[in-house]
Amino acid sequence: MAIPDRTDVHAAWLPPEAFRAVGSRRVLVLGEGLLVDTVREEATRACARHGGGVRHRPPGGNGTADEPFDLVLALSTAEAPAVVTAVRDEFRRTSGQDAIGDEGFVLAHRDGVTVVLADEPAGLLYGFFHVVRLGETAFDAARPAEHHRPAMRRRMLNHWDNVDVHPVMGQVERGYAGGSIFWKDGALREDLTRVRAYGRLLAACGVNALSVNNVNVHRTEAHLLTDRLGDVAAIADELRPYGIRVHLSVNFASPVILGGLPTADPLDERVRQWWARATERVYQTIPDFGGYVVKADSEGQPGPFAYGRDHADGANMLADALAPYGGVVHWRAFVYNHRQDWRDRSTDRARAAYDHFAPLDGRFRDNAIVQVKYGPMDFQVREPVSPVIAAMPATRLAVEFQVTQEYTGQQRHVCYLAPMWSQVLGFRPFGADGPSVADIATDADTGGAAERAVRTAADGGAHAGGGLVAVSNVGDDRFWTGHPLAQANLYAFGRLAWDPRLDPVAVLDEWIDLTFVPSATADPERLRRTLHAMMDESWLTYERYTAPLGVGFMVRPGHHYGPDVDGYEYTPWGTYHFADRDGVGVDRTRATGTGFTGQYPKPWSDVYESLAECPDELLLFFHHVPYGHVLRNGSTVIQHIYDTHFEGVEQVAEIRRLWEKLDRELVSPEVHARVSELLDEQLRCAEEWRDQINTYFFRKSGVPDARGRRIY
Amino acid sequence: MAIPDRTDVHAAWLPPEAFRAVGSRRVLVLGEGLLVDTVREEATRACARHGGGVRHRPPGGNGTADEPFDLVLALSTAEAPAVVTAVRDEFRRTSGQDAIGDEGFVLAHRDGVTVVLADEPAGLLYGFFHVVRLGETAFDAARPAEHHRPAMRRRMLNHWDNVDVHPVMGQVERGYAGGSIFWKDGALREDLTRVRAYGRLLAACGVNALSVNNVNVHRTEAHLLTDRLGDVAAIADELRPYGIRVHLSVNFASPVILGGLPTADPLDERVRQWWARATERVYQTIPDFGGYVVKADSEGQPGPFAYGRDHADGANMLADALAPYGGVVHWRAFVYNHRQDWRDRSTDRARAAYDHFAPLDGRFRDNAIVQVKYGPMDFQVREPVSPVIAAMPATRLAVEFQVTQEYTGQQRHVCYLAPMWSQVLGFRPFGADGPSVADIATDADTGGAAERAVRTAADGGAHAGGGLVAVSNVGDDRFWTGHPLAQANLYAFGRLAWDPRLDPVAVLDEWIDLTFVPSATADPERLRRTLHAMMDESWLTYERYTAPLGVGFMVRPGHHYGPDVDGYEYTPWGTYHFADRDGVGVDRTRATGTGFTGQYPKPWSDVYESLAECPDELLLFFHHVPYGHVLRNGSTVIQHIYDTHFEGVEQVAEIRRLWEKLDRELVSPEVHARVSELLDEQLRCAEEWRDQINTYFFRKSGVPDARGRRIY
Repeated sequence: MAIPDRTDVHAAWLPPEAFRAVGSRRVLVLGEGLLVDTVREEATRACARHGGGVRHRPPGGNGTADEPFDLVLALSTAEAPAVVTAVRDEFRRTSGQDAIGDEGFVLAHRDGVTVVLADEPAGLLYGFFHVVRLGETAFDAARPAEHHRPAMRRRMLNHWDNVDVHPVMGQVERGYAGGSIFWKDGALREDLTRVRAYGRLLAACGVNALSVNNVNVHRTEAHLLTDRLGDVAAIADELRPYGIRVHLSVNFASPVILGGLPTADPLDERVRQWWARATERVYQTIPDFGGYVVKADSEGQPGPFAYGRDHADGANMLADALAPYGGVVHWRAFVYNHRQDWRDRSTDRARAAYDHFAPLDGRFRDNAIVQVKYGPMDFQVREPVSPVIAAMPATRLAVEFQVTQEYTGQQRHVCYLAPMWSQVLGFRPFGADGPSVADIATDADTGGAAERAVRTAADGGAHAGGGLVAVSNVGDDRFWTGHPLAQANLYAFGRLAWDPRLDPVAVLDEWIDLTFVPSATADPERLRRTLHAMMDESWLTYERYTAPLGVGFMVRPGHHYGPDVDGYEYTPWGTYHFADRDGVGVDRTRATGTGFTGQYPKPWSDVYESLAECPDELLLFFHHVPYGHVLRNGSTVIQHIYDTHFEGVEQVAEIRRLWEKLDRELVSPEVHARVSELLDEQLRCAEEWRDQINTYFFRKSGVPDARGRRIY
Repeated sequence: MAIPDRTDVHAAWLPPEAFRAVGSRRVLVLGEGLLVDTVREEATRACARHGGGVRHRPPGGNGTADEPFDLVLALSTAEAPAVVTAVRDEFRRTSGQDAIGDEGFVLAHRDGVTVVLADEPAGLLYGFFHVVRLGETAFDAARPAEHHRPAMRRRMLNHWDNVDVHPVMGQVERGYAGGSIFWKDGALREDLTRVRAYGRLLAACGVNALSVNNVNVHRTEAHLLTDRLGDVAAIADELRPYGIRVHLSVNFASPVILGGLPTADPLDERVRQWWARATERVYQTIPDFGGYVVKADSEGQPGPFAYGRDHADGANMLADALAPYGGVVHWRAFVYNHRQDWRDRSTDRARAAYDHFAPLDGRFRDNAIVQVKYGPMDFQVREPVSPVIAAMPATRLAVEFQVTQEYTGQQRHVCYLAPMWSQVLGFRPFGADGPSVADIATDADTGGAAERAVRTAADGGAHAGGGLVAVSNVGDDRFWTGHPLAQANLYAFGRLAWDPRLDPVAVLDEWIDLTFVPSATADPERLRRTLHAMMDESWLTYERYTAPLGVGFMVRPGHHYGPDVDGYEYTPWGTYHFADRDGVGVDRTRATGTGFTGQYPKPWSDVYESLAECPDELLLFFHHVPYGHVLRNGSTVIQHIYDTHFEGVEQVAEIRRLWEKLDRELVSPEVHARVSELLDEQLRCAEEWRDQINTYFFRKSGVPDARGRRIY
């Protein structure tokens, strides 16, 4: 294995300087296995650069190294020096547990030595990157022993990358960072060193799975399952040393498209056999293959409905094919009527996933994971948490986020999304005493067990959660993510999937300290302050200048960038705001609206139903109100719209001012230039949002701004 | 020359049956030249099919044929039988004219013989198709002698065909009839028989020029001028036998793109020499080449502005290059700022062409034709006539129509456009005593001389007009035009360019009688009635269910099909309606608006300025009015919007009902099925227009429909 070293690509959160603390130590790595070798190589390179050294133990030695060392990373099964066995015994004694866990590790200090102990090679790898992340702090002997294990067993990215350039969607659907790092113009890239570098970044933030192609599986991409499987295997080979398993988006109609069968009916024996054989061949080629991802009966993709079957039938068929090999199917719950008639006020897209999936609870196999977008609509800047997440206690659910900023500025706007994800993960659908979204997505046999116990009691089930999934924001851009600051979203997703209880501001701190601080020659504290001031609340800033009060959309159809208030208002997509001269918002109450509030358990079904109790920020998602409706902050809806839009733009101007004031030596000239250029665009676009939204609502309502500011 | 015979393509207005009257006669064709040969071949084929015969005259004969004949088509210079010389003498005596005119012909009867006489081969060709059009009537000995010559010297089609498939615009920009008949996937088509068949159709309706590529000249297409000139020559070869000259859209930056010069400055001597040499090579290859078409400084196309030059500088440079060979440049006046700020109410796109071009009047060369769209905006269903047409008396102006139905239903809707064109052509910008638009576009030395005399007196000029130009609606569709009934628009354009005074209803009658009646086995009168009922007022029907009262646009951005009331409202394109809760429309008055009304001469500058005098159908083009404003018909603006949109849909339903009632034997099953399918779509789309427009204005105005009909 070679650690990738691409100087033409930004190092993101793994610049050479980030390895200084580790690399200046005397390091001993104990254990066998591919991922242990990765740790050994990482340590070797770090030490070569920073003056430390990797120690060696004589083969068949007696448990002591032949050279002195400061840091030992050891598998608990390896014969180890006394400091290691002492740490192991201490862990067992204090925790009362025998196992550190599949991907877990212990970090402790003993006799002046820093010890990372893990049961499995993956745990050692995560322990190594944990030490990198902590830097010098990791070696503080006064630091208490720590035991880390991931909350989610599967921390996964979905790549919406196409093999062929799609005539409308391009190489990467909803990609804002250039082409795909896997595919180019219909073929696998020849040079995959960047894929390995990507795997390394993901391992360092905790991601352990990814799917390599778009959930909209077009004709060429369908062949990845069969005659182009070698391409997938080549990617898996690059990612394996960093503990990342590869998944594949498949077309539900593959037995027809690829197999020449007359049907893809999931209950047809020929179809089942076709999938069984295809899956067998996949595992012969890629023994650690993760599984399938499926978007079925959604936005034109084929699915079981065509055969009078339901989604459990479809998912279970694939689950059965994968079961012998330990694979899973991620079956997306993003199913709705995208040919809705805007004139029909009774159909509510927000209801669709629940209506389709909740009745199927209990019918999915153990290795069928229902993958649910965090909100009932589609990755808007503000949505309530999807009621599906609370509605399927007997199903393994994965929660899906969108790291790629489709509706949140498309990596041209600064928009740090971790605060939103954190809010979603912390949401308790059954009220304060019930489990959080994170608990529901969490595996019972990993972390978060305490919270799960509560939930298990509440819902009577005892199944495992399905983890966290997100759409990647990475492309072949030099900075990986278009906007250099959008790297923070990818980093934070991995960290929150590992531990949903992390504070987003602290995660941002980690990211800043890894990415920028080591190479900042002066005043890193100033850099930290500036980046926090720019990013901590950038999600709320973005919300302020775009669609108000949870109503969503108002984006330009097709590309979804920039404002177009009525852009989707009369379309078949089911995303409406119903603004007229008197008011705005979608009535989703049971009393007078679509009844969507009834999909929530108490207390939220009542909170959202009540105009008085509904949180302001979701008001227009749940209620149609007059412009004069008074919010809890004392402002009317219309004045709130004006105020937030003027404020949002002022905040962007302030972000831009902060960046311009920043000493250019604190970040590279290239980063500075790219961010400056994008901040210009963000300001322009925010002004456009402000003016279109304000003008639109002024023209409709006729209510002037109380502060007399310019509305066109 | 072979007359094309493509049975896989609809015969349009030249089905074999249309030649019955000619083909059952004994025909003599006298004269020499390519186009005379065409007439001879046409006659030969017609006679072979319908039992007549082509007669021959012995070489060097004495002026009488050796065989009896019913119809003689003769050049006036040819030695001819006595009946011909008698007709010639009679024409000279009664008309007092010596010349029949370049493309003109005389049709007369003498001693039981029908005589077509022309000075030039082109006249003979038009005379032949005139006889075809008249059918048996042509042979009625009681019919008085007729002298026809075209009002416009140049009757031209612009093809917006791309050589390469454009990633956004496709093979044909704004094409609704499939691919290009010239180009496919980056190359000239191998089989050009369809191009010749097209030339034949055009000759039969009077068109005599066309440009072979999109006015937006992309990189590949730029090379048609130089190394791919052979492609243009091949097309010219196919069209030449039908009297059609080929023109080429060129990129103003060609000296840079193709010639490697550092500039395309029209006053730079190197640039001028480059164009002179390039043009010389064109004429060496295509001696009857028509000239260039240029879209400069418009919607991203390069132009003289980049060099601080004006459009006269640009056009004259090309005119100078073309002058030695008798070529012309068509220089489009479609120049405006397409990056306008919607917040800026002072900029008015409608003003742009006048502001750019009127000051240049008198500065253009004689062979530089300024090509002006009929309206100041962009081919909307209703616009006032462009004020540029009245503003450049010392310039040759061509008026541009759009046969391709970009904004008028995209050949999925029945929309017979000739009534609109006829209205535009008959408009008199200087009032009832002044010349009409047709007069201004008319060559002084061809028809319409009487009217031109008036105008010449009025404006002090004595220049020649530039003719009529239109964007073609033809593609590689089996019916040529997508919608079979859209053929009528192409036919009518040619006919109106030949004679703008023709009645659009009579032209439609010609088209029906040529296209459908000859093959209708029963009740052709019923067919005529049905088609007239469907088509005569279809333009007004389309207007009723789309954007109201001349305000324009409200189409979906990009493809321009179907409604999106605010689609362009906040864009840089300059096409706004300014609807708010109180009213709608664009104030273009001098008193309080953009001052556009001042671009018209009297009386129209006053009529349009006055809210009381402004015609209802253009009200919102010129004025912003409250919804309660009362129209001349007594209705309020808002009630008029509701009424016309309900009516428009009812009329489409009636059109559909008429077609469904029609005996299927009266048209081919294939035509019937295609039209039926498209009428379903037209009705669906009209309902969508009705409901979006009505809902939009109801939501804004709050005024209910007086008749209580359903508004969503």
